[in-house]
Amino acid sequence: MANAPVFLLTMGDPAGIGPEIAVRALCGGRPLRDAERATDARIVVVGDLDVLEKAAYVCRGESPPLKAEFNVVSDPDDAVDAPHTVNVIDMGEIDTPRFNPGAPQASCGLAAYRYIIRAIELTMAGKAAGVVTNPISKESLKLAGINYPGHTEIFADKTGAESYSMVFLLDGVAVAHVTTHVSLRNAIDLITKDRVLGQIKLLHRSLKGLGIDPPRMAVAGLNPHAGENGLFGDEEIREIIPAVEEARGLGIDIAGPLPPDTVFSRAFEGEFNGVVSMLHDHGFVALKSRDFDHGVNITVGLPIIRTSVGHGTAFDRAWKGTASPASLISAIDAAVKMNSFARAGGKPQ
Amino acid sequence: MANAPVFLLTMGDPAGIGPEIAVRALCGGRPLRDAERATDARIVVVGDLDVLEKAAYVCRGESPPLKAEFNVVSDPDDAVDAPHTVNVIDMGEIDTPRFNPGAPQASCGLAAYRYIIRAIELTMAGKAAGVVTNPISKESLKLAGINYPGHTEIFADKTGAESYSMVFLLDGVAVAHVTTHVSLRNAIDLITKDRVLGQIKLLHRSLKGLGIDPPRMAVAGLNPHAGENGLFGDEEIREIIPAVEEARGLGIDIAGPLPPDTVFSRAFEGEFNGVVSMLHDHGFVALKSRDFDHGVNITVGLPIIRTSVGHGTAFDRAWKGTASPASLISAIDAAVKMNSFARAGGKPQ
Repeated sequence: MANAPVFLLTMGDPAGIGPEIAVRALCGGRPLRDAERATDARIVVVGDLDVLEKAAYVCRGESPPLKAEFNVVSDPDDAVDAPHTVNVIDMGEIDTPRFNPGAPQASCGLAAYRYIIRAIELTMAGKAAGVVTNPISKESLKLAGINYPGHTEIFADKTGAESYSMVFLLDGVAVAHVTTHVSLRNAIDLITKDRVLGQIKLLHRSLKGLGIDPPRMAVAGLNPHAGENGLFGDEEIREIIPAVEEARGLGIDIAGPLPPDTVFSRAFEGEFNGVVSMLHDHGFVALKSRDFDHGVNITVGLPIIRTSVGHGTAFDRAWKGTASPASLISAIDAAVKMNSFARAGGKPQ
Repeated sequence: MANAPVFLLTMGDPAGIGPEIAVRALCGGRPLRDAERATDARIVVVGDLDVLEKAAYVCRGESPPLKAEFNVVSDPDDAVDAPHTVNVIDMGEIDTPRFNPGAPQASCGLAAYRYIIRAIELTMAGKAAGVVTNPISKESLKLAGINYPGHTEIFADKTGAESYSMVFLLDGVAVAHVTTHVSLRNAIDLITKDRVLGQIKLLHRSLKGLGIDPPRMAVAGLNPHAGENGLFGDEEIREIIPAVEEARGLGIDIAGPLPPDTVFSRAFEGEFNGVVSMLHDHGFVALKSRDFDHGVNITVGLPIIRTSVGHGTAFDRAWKGTASPASLISAIDAAVKMNSFARAGGKPQ
């Protein structure tokens, strides 16, 4: 299928699990759920051929045996969609004999950064339908003198996006967070009507962009039992309920605030397809307890499609040939679906 | 098996799901995991025969058809262990025609309270090996003029316990909470070294009491990523780490503080069998996202064994004959195990 859309997959930090999960995901050497297989798409790894070959060698012991062939391309459109074939744009960043698997290092930070930049440039130039990213190490980036805190900021900067956010997707349920990487004490102060309403609107748009339509949303409370009518905290009454009411006035179908300890399981049982979480460790505790392996990050608000694995570089488990490609496969699948939906007439995000 | 130990099962609020899940759990009319079947035990419901018969009638549509026979006893030791047989101490509290299923009401609050009192009295008198409780309604208790906030306080009061706490058990992992029913803002102030150390010691004792030995414990942080070395909050550095260090000095095997969003999945994967959670909605979000149906509450620090279902009266779903007995079966199983362990020479808790 030569005309299938192309998605660029960054190799991630060479010392992390990115190279091995890329090879495992694309060569299908281990049994995967059928629903996870990205179809009607050609995937091109932006990375280093040498590193990928080394990663395939490390994975040789899996059963059935991993069979990987590499197809080096310079134009993404030369990519093929063939079993056991990994399309590669070979950036030649890493001096393989000097590279130290499983540890942060400047050379890997720089390489990982350059893969991302190349993938963004090609996609912005219309050469690919979207980018899927493997994990990078903040520490390696820093050692290389690159001061972005993470992928999202690089994408926002290089694509000129002004308003963007992350949504986490698992088993057909999307979760947006009102607060993430701040102390719990500061997070409470950040729970304002405006911020809650902003994340409700963002999640509503994101669900439609993912083709999850109509959105059936819920808001989690901040306090235990969502405050039990003000008995255990009044942020629900002061900030969250007014935001929910305003959202309903805009025609958004949204329940809550519901107790944090039940809203996520109700969503996973099919009652809701989107949940707005007040705290990093409401949403992420629920998602990771439900299924550690299959979560996908999606950046919404960019001019291009970008999805990502839900985990980090896992240096402690890297280069043993055993890291699970499940989240990566889900991330590829989500990007393909977002693109199909956008081409069918929906808006990209 | 006439000599199998007797456990008393309170019927719970008659208007809630207690009666139907009791009948379903004891008559085994629906397929259950083998591991959940409580063996070597005789179960006696402390409740109302009329209500239980009505509940069995409501459940008649299940497949395979529910077959329930009732064996009314006044002395628990007259209970039998026979298939499809429900032993009942008939308290005759409820005037069945006037009873309103699925709603809070004074008569049900009073009845539920009296079942508990009778079960405690019989167990304290040595007539039973422990008590398993079905859910009660705070609102019904209040309407009846009974001002206990819940089961635990009734048990503590009537058994003369001074220091007691709840532990939640699911899939071989026990979770203790440092804070529960307080606002998030107040919860943060309650995270002190002494309280954290107290819950570490309590969980350590509880694991041994449950026969989960040796305990392999972890402490969850309070802040996202457990604060990332003080970057997102310093409660880990000021309060939690000193408690963990003191616990280690006492010979307790304990890791952490670990990021709240990964510690629970690591536990469920087998790395830890006990987790101390700082917040209601770290532990309970993890437990309920993992498995909504099988969690069990255990009160530790009482002179008698007491376990409970992990859910409430579920008035909105009661008396439809469809409520799952899974948590109740797990609660019975936990009580039986705690008793076996105590009889084999371990301490009860």
